[in-house]
Amino acid sequence: MDIRIHIKQPTLLLDKKKCISNIENMLDRAKRCNLSFRPHFKTHQSAEVAEWFRELGVNKIAVSSLKMAQYFADNKWEDITVAMPVNLREMDIVDELAGKIKLNILVESAESIHHLEAELNNKVNAYIKIDTGYHRTGIAADDTKSIQNLLDYIKASTRLEFKGFLAHSGHNYKASDAEEIHKYHKKTVLDLNELKDVFRSQFPDLEVSLGDTPACSISDEFFGIDEIRPGNFAFYDMMQFVLGSCEENEIAVAMACPIIAKHADRNEIVIYGGGVHFSKEYLEADDEGTKLFGSLVDINPDGWSPIRGGGFLASLSQEHGIIKCNEALFNEYKVGDLIGILPIHSCMTANLMGSYLTLEAETIKMMR
Amino acid sequence: MDIRIHIKQPTLLLDKKKCISNIENMLDRAKRCNLSFRPHFKTHQSAEVAEWFRELGVNKIAVSSLKMAQYFADNKWEDITVAMPVNLREMDIVDELAGKIKLNILVESAESIHHLEAELNNKVNAYIKIDTGYHRTGIAADDTKSIQNLLDYIKASTRLEFKGFLAHSGHNYKASDAEEIHKYHKKTVLDLNELKDVFRSQFPDLEVSLGDTPACSISDEFFGIDEIRPGNFAFYDMMQFVLGSCEENEIAVAMACPIIAKHADRNEIVIYGGGVHFSKEYLEADDEGTKLFGSLVDINPDGWSPIRGGGFLASLSQEHGIIKCNEALFNEYKVGDLIGILPIHSCMTANLMGSYLTLEAETIKMMR
Repeated sequence: MDIRIHIKQPTLLLDKKKCISNIENMLDRAKRCNLSFRPHFKTHQSAEVAEWFRELGVNKIAVSSLKMAQYFADNKWEDITVAMPVNLREMDIVDELAGKIKLNILVESAESIHHLEAELNNKVNAYIKIDTGYHRTGIAADDTKSIQNLLDYIKASTRLEFKGFLAHSGHNYKASDAEEIHKYHKKTVLDLNELKDVFRSQFPDLEVSLGDTPACSISDEFFGIDEIRPGNFAFYDMMQFVLGSCEENEIAVAMACPIIAKHADRNEIVIYGGGVHFSKEYLEADDEGTKLFGSLVDINPDGWSPIRGGGFLASLSQEHGIIKCNEALFNEYKVGDLIGILPIHSCMTANLMGSYLTLEAETIKMMR
Repeated sequence: MDIRIHIKQPTLLLDKKKCISNIENMLDRAKRCNLSFRPHFKTHQSAEVAEWFRELGVNKIAVSSLKMAQYFADNKWEDITVAMPVNLREMDIVDELAGKIKLNILVESAESIHHLEAELNNKVNAYIKIDTGYHRTGIAADDTKSIQNLLDYIKASTRLEFKGFLAHSGHNYKASDAEEIHKYHKKTVLDLNELKDVFRSQFPDLEVSLGDTPACSISDEFFGIDEIRPGNFAFYDMMQFVLGSCEENEIAVAMACPIIAKHADRNEIVIYGGGVHFSKEYLEADDEGTKLFGSLVDINPDGWSPIRGGGFLASLSQEHGIIKCNEALFNEYKVGDLIGILPIHSCMTANLMGSYLTLEAETIKMMR
C-alpha cells in the first residue's frame, strides 16, 4: 500500500504506532513515579484515539471545555476533570454531567463557589486551581490565606466536594532548554508540597494534580504529587522537540500537503496548506525573528522521513503555505507532489483539521 | 430581547445590518467604477450569508478551495472562481464541477496545463495567475515571455478556455497606511494595464480580475480592471481597521466570551476563548513587540459598543485568553459576565468558530 494515493488535500497523518508508544512511555513513567495518570484529551479530541488509551488501562481523563467533557462522557468516559476555571454560564451542563459521571471542576473564586452552591442539584468534585508561576489562572501557591478562604466556603457547601489542588506549569513552555524545565519543575513540586503540608491536617485525602507535557516527558521527580495530566505527549510536535521533551522520531503526526506551484527565481515551493490547516503558531528560527511554521519531511508510502534540512515552511496565508528552500531541495519536488510538514503545535493543527488519516489509510474522526 | 442570555460559550456575533451595509458599499463602488463584482466567500464560508449577497444581485463568486467550490455549487452558485493555483491531486473534483457549473481555475505552470488537458473530460475556464508584487504565487506581470509560453499551451489545449489574468495584491496588507495602499494599488493597476495591452490583440476578450479588501475599500481607481474579488470587507476586522480599510463601526463581527477568572494583583481578566476560537493572529501594538490579539468592546443587549480603551486581549492559549487592563476597566467586570472582542482577522476566526449568532439570536451555519 502507498498512503500517498489517498491524499488529495492537506491531510493530517497519524502514526498510530508512534502514538501508542508515546502513551506507553508516559504510562511507564507514571507507574515508575507512583503517579495516577489522567491524560489530557484536548490534544487529540477523538473518541477513537481515546480507545488506544483505554486499551492500555487508562480510565480517567482531563479535558479543556465542558463541551469536550460531554463528548467524552457520551463515549463512556466516566471520570473527567475539566481543567479550566468553571464557566458560570454553563451551570446546566455542569449539573447534567455531575449527575452522570464523576466530574471534577476547577474553582478559584468565591463567586464561582457561591454560584455552584446555588445552581447545582448534583454534587461535584472541586479542585482549587493553583498558580505555580505561569500566571494565567489560579491562586498563588503561597497565598494560603486566600486558599483557606476558598476552602472555608467549600467546606460550608453542600454541593462541592474538595478534591485537592491542581496546577499547570505552562511556563515550562517558555524554558530555553531541558535544564531550565527541570529547574522550574523542581520549584513547582516544592511549592506544591509546602501547600499540601499546610492543608493536609484539614484534608487528609487531598490530592495534588500537575500537568504539562515538557516536565512529564523529562522528569522523574514527582515527590508528593499524586496525579499527572500531560496531553500533547500523545503526538508531540516541533515545539516540544525544540524544548527537548521528545525525540524527532516520537512526533506522531505530520501534515501531508500537495505542491501547487514552484518559483525557481526565489527557490520557493507553494503548498496547498495554510493557516486554516496548520494554525498560525510559529517558532522563532533565529535572532532576526525568522518565523518557522513547520519543518519539512518527505512523505513515503508507509510514513514520513526524518526532518529534511535545506528548507522550512516560512509563511502561511489562509489556504497557502510558502516553503523557502535551497536549490537542491527545490529541484527534488514537482508540482502535484506531496510534501510533509511536522507541525509547530499539534493540538492546534489537529483542532483545525478535524480528522486524522492513519498510515494504514483509516480515517479517524474527532469531536465536531 | 437581550442577546446575552443566548451566550454561554465563546460565540461569534454577526451584525447582519452592518454586513449588508458593507456589501452594499462595495457593490456601489463596483458600479461606480464599472467593475464586475465577484466577492470572495472564503471569509464567511456560509450559504446563508451568501444569500444576502444574492439578494443584492450578486451571481458570481470566488472561493479558496475546490471543497468550498463544491459547497457553494451545492447551494446553487453557478459561476465560481477557485482563486488558488489548481491542485493537480483534485482533478476529479475540477472535472466534476466543470461539468456542472461555470468553473474558473488558475494556472501558472506548463505542468498544470498538461495535466488538465490530459485528465479533464469537461471544458474549464482558466486564468493565468499574475504576481503584482506580493510574491506568493503567479508569474511576474512583466514576464511576458513566460506568460506567452503558457498562453501557447492554453491555445493548443482542447479543455482550457483562456479567460484572462488574475492578481491578488496581498502586499497591500503590509502597507503602513492608506497612502501606501494607494501607491501599491496604482502600480498594480498600471502593471496589469501594460500586461493587458500586450495580449489584447491575441485575446480581445481577456479580462483582468483583481482582488484584495484594502485597495477595493479605499480606491476608486480601477481603470482597465474588469472585475474585483474582495472578501474580508463583508465583516472587516481589526487588521483592516488599523490599515485604514474600514471604520471601526463597520466591523460586522465580534466574539462574545464569558469571563472565567479575574486577578486583581495584576489587573488581568481571564476569558473562556482561546486560540481554537480566535486563531493566533495578532497585530504588533507597539515597537516593543507587544501583541494585540483583539480589542475590547462591551456586549450590549442588541449588539456591541465602540472599542473600549484601557485594555486589550494580550495572550491566548488553547481555550483561554488573558485581557490586560487598567483598574477602572478591571473593576467594571465580574466573573460570569460576557466581554466582547473585535477579532484581528475575521476570516480565521470565522473558520474556527464554524457558525455565527446574529443579533436577532439566529444561528447561521457555515461549511463544515
